[in-house]
Amino acid sequence: MTVGSVTTAPRAQSAAERFLQVRGLTDLLASRLSAEDQVPQSMTAASPAAWHRAHTTWFFEEFVLGRVPGYESPEPIFRFLFNSYYEAVGPRQPRPERGLITRPSVAEIGGFRARIDEAVVSALEAGRIDERGLELLELGCHHEQQHQELLLMDIKHLFSHNPTDPVYVARDVDPSAATPGETDWLVVVEGVVQIGAEGDGTTRVATHPTGGTHPTSAAAPGGFSYDNERPRHRVWIPGGEVATRQVTVGEWKQFMADGGYSRPELWLSDGWATVQAEDWDAPGYWRREAEDGSDRPPGAAGQVDAEWTTFTLNGRRPVVDAEPVLHVSFYEADAYARWAGARLPTEFEWETATVGWEVRDELDPARCHPRSVTERTIGGVWEWTSSAYLPYPGFVTEEGAAGEYNGKFMSDQHVLRGGSALTPAGHTRHTYRNFFPAASRWAAAGLRLAR
Amino acid sequence: MTVGSVTTAPRAQSAAERFLQVRGLTDLLASRLSAEDQVPQSMTAASPAAWHRAHTTWFFEEFVLGRVPGYESPEPIFRFLFNSYYEAVGPRQPRPERGLITRPSVAEIGGFRARIDEAVVSALEAGRIDERGLELLELGCHHEQQHQELLLMDIKHLFSHNPTDPVYVARDVDPSAATPGETDWLVVVEGVVQIGAEGDGTTRVATHPTGGTHPTSAAAPGGFSYDNERPRHRVWIPGGEVATRQVTVGEWKQFMADGGYSRPELWLSDGWATVQAEDWDAPGYWRREAEDGSDRPPGAAGQVDAEWTTFTLNGRRPVVDAEPVLHVSFYEADAYARWAGARLPTEFEWETATVGWEVRDELDPARCHPRSVTERTIGGVWEWTSSAYLPYPGFVTEEGAAGEYNGKFMSDQHVLRGGSALTPAGHTRHTYRNFFPAASRWAAAGLRLAR
Amino acid sequence: MTVGSVTTAPRAQSAAERFLQVRGLTDLLASRLSAEDQVPQSMTAASPAAWHRAHTTWFFEEFVLGRVPGYESPEPIFRFLFNSYYEAVGPRQPRPERGLITRPSVAEIGGFRARIDEAVVSALEAGRIDERGLELLELGCHHEQQHQELLLMDIKHLFSHNPTDPVYVARDVDPSAATPGETDWLVVVEGVVQIGAEGDGTTRVATHPTGGTHPTSAAAPGGFSYDNERPRHRVWIPGGEVATRQVTVGEWKQFMADGGYSRPELWLSDGWATVQAEDWDAPGYWRREAEDGSDRPPGAAGQVDAEWTTFTLNGRRPVVDAEPVLHVSFYEADAYARWAGARLPTEFEWETATVGWEVRDELDPARCHPRSVTERTIGGVWEWTSSAYLPYPGFVTEEGAAGEYNGKFMSDQHVLRGGSALTPAGHTRHTYRNFFPAASRWAAAGLRLAR
Amino acid sequence: MTVGSVTTAPRAQSAAERFLQVRGLTDLLASRLSAEDQVPQSMTAASPAAWHRAHTTWFFEEFVLGRVPGYESPEPIFRFLFNSYYEAVGPRQPRPERGLITRPSVAEIGGFRARIDEAVVSALEAGRIDERGLELLELGCHHEQQHQELLLMDIKHLFSHNPTDPVYVARDVDPSAATPGETDWLVVVEGVVQIGAEGDGTTRVATHPTGGTHPTSAAAPGGFSYDNERPRHRVWIPGGEVATRQVTVGEWKQFMADGGYSRPELWLSDGWATVQAEDWDAPGYWRREAEDGSDRPPGAAGQVDAEWTTFTLNGRRPVVDAEPVLHVSFYEADAYARWAGARLPTEFEWETATVGWEVRDELDPARCHPRSVTERTIGGVWEWTSSAYLPYPGFVTEEGAAGEYNGKFMSDQHVLRGGSALTPAGHTRHTYRNFFPAASRWAAAGLRLAR
Repeated sequence: MTVGSVTTAPRAQSAAERFLQVRGLTDLLASRLSAEDQVPQSMTAASPAAWHRAHTTWFFEEFVLGRVPGYESPEPIFRFLFNSYYEAVGPRQPRPERGLITRPSVAEIGGFRARIDEAVVSALEAGRIDERGLELLELGCHHEQQHQELLLMDIKHLFSHNPTDPVYVARDVDPSAATPGETDWLVVVEGVVQIGAEGDGTTRVATHPTGGTHPTSAAAPGGFSYDNERPRHRVWIPGGEVATRQVTVGEWKQFMADGGYSRPELWLSDGWATVQAEDWDAPGYWRREAEDGSDRPPGAAGQVDAEWTTFTLNGRRPVVDAEPVLHVSFYEADAYARWAGARLPTEFEWETATVGWEVRDELDPARCHPRSVTERTIGGVWEWTSSAYLPYPGFVTEEGAAGEYNGKFMSDQHVLRGGSALTPAGHTRHTYRNFFPAASRWAAAGLRLAR
Repeated sequence: MTVGSVTTAPRAQSAAERFLQVRGLTDLLASRLSAEDQVPQSMTAASPAAWHRAHTTWFFEEFVLGRVPGYESPEPIFRFLFNSYYEAVGPRQPRPERGLITRPSVAEIGGFRARIDEAVVSALEAGRIDERGLELLELGCHHEQQHQELLLMDIKHLFSHNPTDPVYVARDVDPSAATPGETDWLVVVEGVVQIGAEGDGTTRVATHPTGGTHPTSAAAPGGFSYDNERPRHRVWIPGGEVATRQVTVGEWKQFMADGGYSRPELWLSDGWATVQAEDWDAPGYWRREAEDGSDRPPGAAGQVDAEWTTFTLNGRRPVVDAEPVLHVSFYEADAYARWAGARLPTEFEWETATVGWEVRDELDPARCHPRSVTERTIGGVWEWTSSAYLPYPGFVTEEGAAGEYNGKFMSDQHVLRGGSALTPAGHTRHTYRNFFPAASRWAAAGLRLAR
Repeated sequence: MTVGSVTTAPRAQSAAERFLQVRGLTDLLASRLSAEDQVPQSMTAASPAAWHRAHTTWFFEEFVLGRVPGYESPEPIFRFLFNSYYEAVGPRQPRPERGLITRPSVAEIGGFRARIDEAVVSALEAGRIDERGLELLELGCHHEQQHQELLLMDIKHLFSHNPTDPVYVARDVDPSAATPGETDWLVVVEGVVQIGAEGDGTTRVATHPTGGTHPTSAAAPGGFSYDNERPRHRVWIPGGEVATRQVTVGEWKQFMADGGYSRPELWLSDGWATVQAEDWDAPGYWRREAEDGSDRPPGAAGQVDAEWTTFTLNGRRPVVDAEPVLHVSFYEADAYARWAGARLPTEFEWETATVGWEVRDELDPARCHPRSVTERTIGGVWEWTSSAYLPYPGFVTEEGAAGEYNGKFMSDQHVLRGGSALTPAGHTRHTYRNFFPAASRWAAAGLRLAR
Repeated sequence: MTVGSVTTAPRAQSAAERFLQVRGLTDLLASRLSAEDQVPQSMTAASPAAWHRAHTTWFFEEFVLGRVPGYESPEPIFRFLFNSYYEAVGPRQPRPERGLITRPSVAEIGGFRARIDEAVVSALEAGRIDERGLELLELGCHHEQQHQELLLMDIKHLFSHNPTDPVYVARDVDPSAATPGETDWLVVVEGVVQIGAEGDGTTRVATHPTGGTHPTSAAAPGGFSYDNERPRHRVWIPGGEVATRQVTVGEWKQFMADGGYSRPELWLSDGWATVQAEDWDAPGYWRREAEDGSDRPPGAAGQVDAEWTTFTLNGRRPVVDAEPVLHVSFYEADAYARWAGARLPTEFEWETATVGWEVRDELDPARCHPRSVTERTIGGVWEWTSSAYLPYPGFVTEEGAAGEYNGKFMSDQHVLRGGSALTPAGHTRHTYRNFFPAASRWAAAGLRLAR
């Protein structure tokens, strides 16, 4: 830190550390991928790993460095190539063609990352990033954390198409996990509750004079939040009960055994149409192995079902009953709940019920797969709620291009709450609103029941 | 009515009158259509008029007569042909192929209608329809009223593809309508409100000892309601304002003149993609006429815009500023609201705000098109709300096939409230929840702002 | 015929008789259809019966009456509605939307036909149709004959989608037909042959001074021919053998029993892809009935296979071994030939081999389905050849819009030769070149082997 | 070469040299591509460069080494991954998902190539490859040459989607090329000609005792030929004239200036539909640059048109009038010919006319783009003919999987003759039959007129 920037120095130092820590995790995750792995786009909704690495970098250049007087991009074409959907910023590479960009190379994208890292840190140290720039820097860190999860989801999707079943990170299945018993139910009392994040979403709001953060309550953290979590507002909750743990693989197999995928009365109309069009008969990435049981692991009886395998970032291996079910669409989650004589919680019930529950099973780069289900925790898998993704009352889109972050997607999607084993540590929070279309299966999504 | 059925007679007589009145309106609407007009299916989401006539009849045979001991259908194949989506009832003609059914003929479908009419009335008179059957008869009448509106929507869509611009019912444009001034805003106070219909939706609940119906309040009619309007429940409403009138054609033209269809920042992401994919630059059925103004009607200056015409059930004619805008999708309604610095109301705000407002501009078979916009009324055009179509807390699907009526469509759609100039008289009510996918434009849908 | 038009009278009378005869057959074929039957378009490649009736009429108005000085169309919109693909004539109703034209009504189209019939005959009698007009009148008659076959093909396709299995014309299956024995082979000697029609295709060319027609040879009729059959030219034919009869249903069942639809080595690459995409396992319109054999006709053993039924213009009924196989695509015909250790004939071999064979089994309106296979005849089913549909050397497109008749389709199609049981009497000839894309199955097409 | 294998040594040595030379060119062509460049599949019809490299290698392993007693593949999964369409060999990676195979890596594919190279040469030296194996080795070399051209075509297609306009090989445009004058016409006399390659396509047939090849005539080389070029057979050719040079870019610009892409009367029906669906208004890879002429090269007046640029393997640069037009579909070639008052030659006219013309402008790895048009040569661009791709009389598919090489594609394609600037030296020959669907534009295809 240069002498003289007395006032900004501590905060800049903290911001720089935070920034470099986030950036470093992306590099770690990408380090297991070859140049080849980083190029393809396995479906329109996914993106190449190289693109994730470049796009997150572009975000900092566009929104943070772009505010620094005199900053000029050394590679203006990157603004076109690695813009994602920010219409306000200008034209961009068509989304379905992201996988056709082989130049700049993966190494050049690494160089781009290094240059921007250095420019951001230098600007921070020089005190050349203004208040709004610091807010956008923080937003950029959260944006990059989101893309870390997307990178892993997308790589899993890509690798799943390779008949050689590539292993992203090697890890043995732990067959000793005890299958959880019947779920407990937490009573949610009827009445008005407060929902959403406090403040305006910047860390400043909650910055205590001592410099530490000061969350006003577990359910309403005063720290960073996305605009879609705000404003904090009142909601009337009807009385109900929320399950204290997620639905397991073992339970899902009972649903399957009971004809879950072949009984139209369990399904929403669009869901049933999707089941038939896509020939779904099990969660995403599951495959029924040959009858000879040749790949049944020794000693796995009980916990491990040799018949069904699933593709994971640890390679293909048998499904494990004690784990939360994963890669199910909203339609499947909804059908399961109906089969179980229950329903999905609303996002408001969810947020109310989970106050005080531990965030568990965030991203462990040595694992990249959920642990067994536990009681009264969140994490491991995202949880579908019955709520459509809509703006909170009083929602205000951020000004400028950053306003294209969340609000424009508020139609035709459902809210997921919690976080997954692919969500970077510290990114999961009780007010977080993730969202996907109802037919999506490539997110790390499972469910929790309500009734 | 036969002698002896003392107890059921008055109620049966009332039910029979109601039934025949509803059935008669369908016949009236169809009487303007040739046999040819009743056959085609102009898109998968639409149905042939003959199909509407037969399907509504099938409903009574399947659900009402099917309960009468000893009843046997004279044409069992009709159960297959005219089932719509009731999976529980058995297989059915694939929806996209409804327009290929030329036999039974339109006249034979008329005969089918007459036979079922007679069988229902006879069964009523003979007291052979039980309590549940009477409920389903009432449901069938509402079902048929819905299909009356669908029949008109679908005929409009069909006719709009005919270069000869067929006229369903002739009527002159009234150019004297005064364009409404600035809208007023009704304040909706923050707090808990009751939403939805009371009772269990059958007319019995609200039947007064004297035999008349007795709505408990304007906002909570004790009369018939669909299952999706129930149960009545509490909702917390944030404070806001709801416009006292609908958005007009004249206002929509300002949106268009201001580049509304070419500014991505006004649109939801899926909406903008739809605008580009469909080349939308005006509401559905609008067409810009040739520059020479050859079809400009004399003396139409001011109220009538010769440049844009719209196809109506009265034929193609210039758009009229004073009318409510019509045939806009949710995406367009949402973009318009954003352009206007406002937003769409939630369905809860809407239901709360419109209590006590007159239902105006229901179906007039001599008109079949909305009148000019008026203050503090509902009707004329359905109004998009910002609410996704989801079950109310405690929603219970009806048992049996009738349970497939509403609940299975509760995903990926938006709620519309009110009613339109195609909605049969008496069918519009404040708790009614209509629903369509966000990109739909063939419904008679407009909007009202909130802020 | 008016007095005074001495010279043209006999020819005009003959032309008028011919014209009215052709027109009358269309009316006869349509007379079995309700108004409803005449409206739908069951796929883009098909057209409504009403459209066929109007389009053939339009042809005479556009090309024949349009040449008569002072003629004015009473319904100019019909030019737009019933033009098919003649780009030179102006815009037209989009092909996939032909089934949405419910007005003019079927009765009005009948009136249109009557008016044009009368106008043509009057103009003939008045000697107001010039030489070129007479040629186009003859072309129009052949054009209408083609559409008579298309009308029947398209009605069959439409009716096949109706679960009630409508009967176009009732007729019992004749189970006594003897299955033909092994086919004989006709040797075609290597060398140069003459292929195609003589003259310029007008009947004048071959008009003998006495007024009769004068075919120069069986293979080179001097009568009417389409431009695509001309000019007559030399082709070198390699030596080969052509089967003296068509492939039968019984033989096709052996192909199926031998795994014909599941052995990729028998198929062209595009053919195999089509088999898999369309789930083909039998010819078009075939359906395997339920195991209980409930619809097995008594005494049908041997000739009639109760397991497979086929939809015909006589309704649905069991397939009959002795009939020619029908509704197979080029891909299937080619695969069958490979399975049989043979091949399809070229169109030149076909034309050479069939010289002198009787034309048999043309359209009998009381039958509308092929008779049993016979030796050394053509007709019953169109026969796929191995030849692509390409212009003959020296092919010259007719001038003006009539030039859009054949030439513009000379790519991506295969030639069929012969005629079918739906081809109007007199329309089948040895030089005739029919053509369809390789995947088409709704034509009345079968095959004959060569080797 | 090992001592002792006296008999086979000379031939084996020659085969090994030939083999290594072909394999080396692939390596050279790939050496300009990064690992990233070799992964994506830019459309279903194209393949990744890495796939081309592996698939050609697989061919030798499958068909040549597979015959060597005791040979075992070290990587059996490669048989699945890099099989292309050989149904007889077993299942394979779905074609549209070739671009998702990132493992094995590009380096591992290089290792695979090296191992197979070594195994083939060792087996040759050891005399362990039998007669049929030698034939298949030769077939494999030609197969790899074909894929060398495909690799370049596909890379061009991929790079064309990259906004940075990557350069495969740098080369300046030569603006001094003189635009050729009016074409001359070569008279082709009516009569019977011999078409196709002699022998059975193996080099043995034509191997002279001295060891040199001994083509029996220019038009009927006794050397290698594909099965689709055989058997040599008689064809009757009508009299005509064939242009002595190809159509140039300058001529094509006249076609465009004359409204070529907007006049339906010039087009086949399917062609016109494609023009409209694809918005074609110029050859593939052409783009009209901004009006300001900012990228007009200095001094380029006359030869170089600054308005239109084209993407080449040398990067994007202005089109050059003297070059043959390139990347036109059959539909465009056919429309151009009609506009020019001419037609395309048949493949038989082409083969007859070009006897004795020099093969010029084959692949120069330092250029990879056609030179200016010259008289009485072939090469530079493939030339569309009017002939559909069909089997020659007496065509016999090779036995076994190698029989899937050509014959199964004999439908729905057109023949191209000659060779292009991407065709490896020695691969072009007068009897060669290339083929593509009529709408294809990514091949290096132009045209030559006939009349």
